[in-house]
Amino acid sequence: MTYPKSFEELMECFKMLPGIGNKGAERMAYHMLDMDALSVQRFANAMIDFKKNIHHCKICGHICEGDTCEICQDPERDHSMICVVESPKDVFAMEKLKEYHGLYHVLGGTISIMDGITADDLNIDSLFKRINEQTKEVIIATNPTREGETTALYLAKLLDQMGVNVSRIANGLPVGSSLDYADDLTLLRSFEGRQKI
Amino acid sequence: MTYPKSFEELMECFKMLPGIGNKGAERMAYHMLDMDALSVQRFANAMIDFKKNIHHCKICGHICEGDTCEICQDPERDHSMICVVESPKDVFAMEKLKEYHGLYHVLGGTISIMDGITADDLNIDSLFKRINEQTKEVIIATNPTREGETTALYLAKLLDQMGVNVSRIANGLPVGSSLDYADDLTLLRSFEGRQKI
Repeated sequence: MTYPKSFEELMECFKMLPGIGNKGAERMAYHMLDMDALSVQRFANAMIDFKKNIHHCKICGHICEGDTCEICQDPERDHSMICVVESPKDVFAMEKLKEYHGLYHVLGGTISIMDGITADDLNIDSLFKRINEQTKEVIIATNPTREGETTALYLAKLLDQMGVNVSRIANGLPVGSSLDYADDLTLLRSFEGRQKI
Repeated sequence: MTYPKSFEELMECFKMLPGIGNKGAERMAYHMLDMDALSVQRFANAMIDFKKNIHHCKICGHICEGDTCEICQDPERDHSMICVVESPKDVFAMEKLKEYHGLYHVLGGTISIMDGITADDLNIDSLFKRINEQTKEVIIATNPTREGETTALYLAKLLDQMGVNVSRIANGLPVGSSLDYADDLTLLRSFEGRQKI
């Protein structure tokens, strides 16, 4: 015996979501069975509106509802600094700090030879086009993974040729961690990056 | 900084699903950002069609696309036996065995004093109405939990008064398990339920 067609189809759709397998999709479909029709309609509308309204900012690649994001539009922000991140999630993480007041540039991924992603597949060209005499510093804040580091080195080299001040966020021990649990590379970077106190 | 409105709304909707919190909803919304518009439209349609097409069978309470389910409609099945289960999931679990060829009755839950669910909230009345001189046996297959047992005892008592043959699925050790890991009650039931070999 199989599930009714509409049930199967909804399960297939749930399985498109990250981390959702057969059992999870089944559970979600059963849950939806108990949801009232209005909530289901709201959910379906939210999906369609989301796809229709959310775009990437034409300047920095962050997500927004209009053509350009509120950060790029904000005259109060420091337009002489650009922080380069991998994804919109990273922008939100940085903004939570309330410490950085410059602009962002979202690459939409990292260079990865394993996955066949080259610089051309990323939002890199537009970064170079944004840089002008106003630009004082570009902070590269890609993740400290192999792909993130590769991307950072690639960008640093090209930006350096353009005569731009480039910096990279620091590696080191996370606050609250202990030395004997840190991996060798993190400890080494933490040691190399030591600062006067 | 907050997410754009359509992004927030989709996250709120994902959070209605079981087991999905803030982080999970965020991850799903980001994933949907990368999905093509056609897939998102398909997903939204699947939800609406699901809610429109999937009903509970008017006879047994199982899920189906028409008025009555294919099991109730099937003349090949043994209409003299009714297996009472808690949810449609249990029907699919039983059907996988290909061992039982009778009908089902889906209660849609269990009697639970803690959650304020009484017999009136469940699909019980229609069970009594289904029983006629043709009915040879009612097998109660609610889960062996406190609520499942309460419901089973309640049903057994009333069905017994109606003069129906009532049976309950067996408690015991799961196949492949070991005695010393079994809880006391399971072991006791397994001992009490011993059969000649």
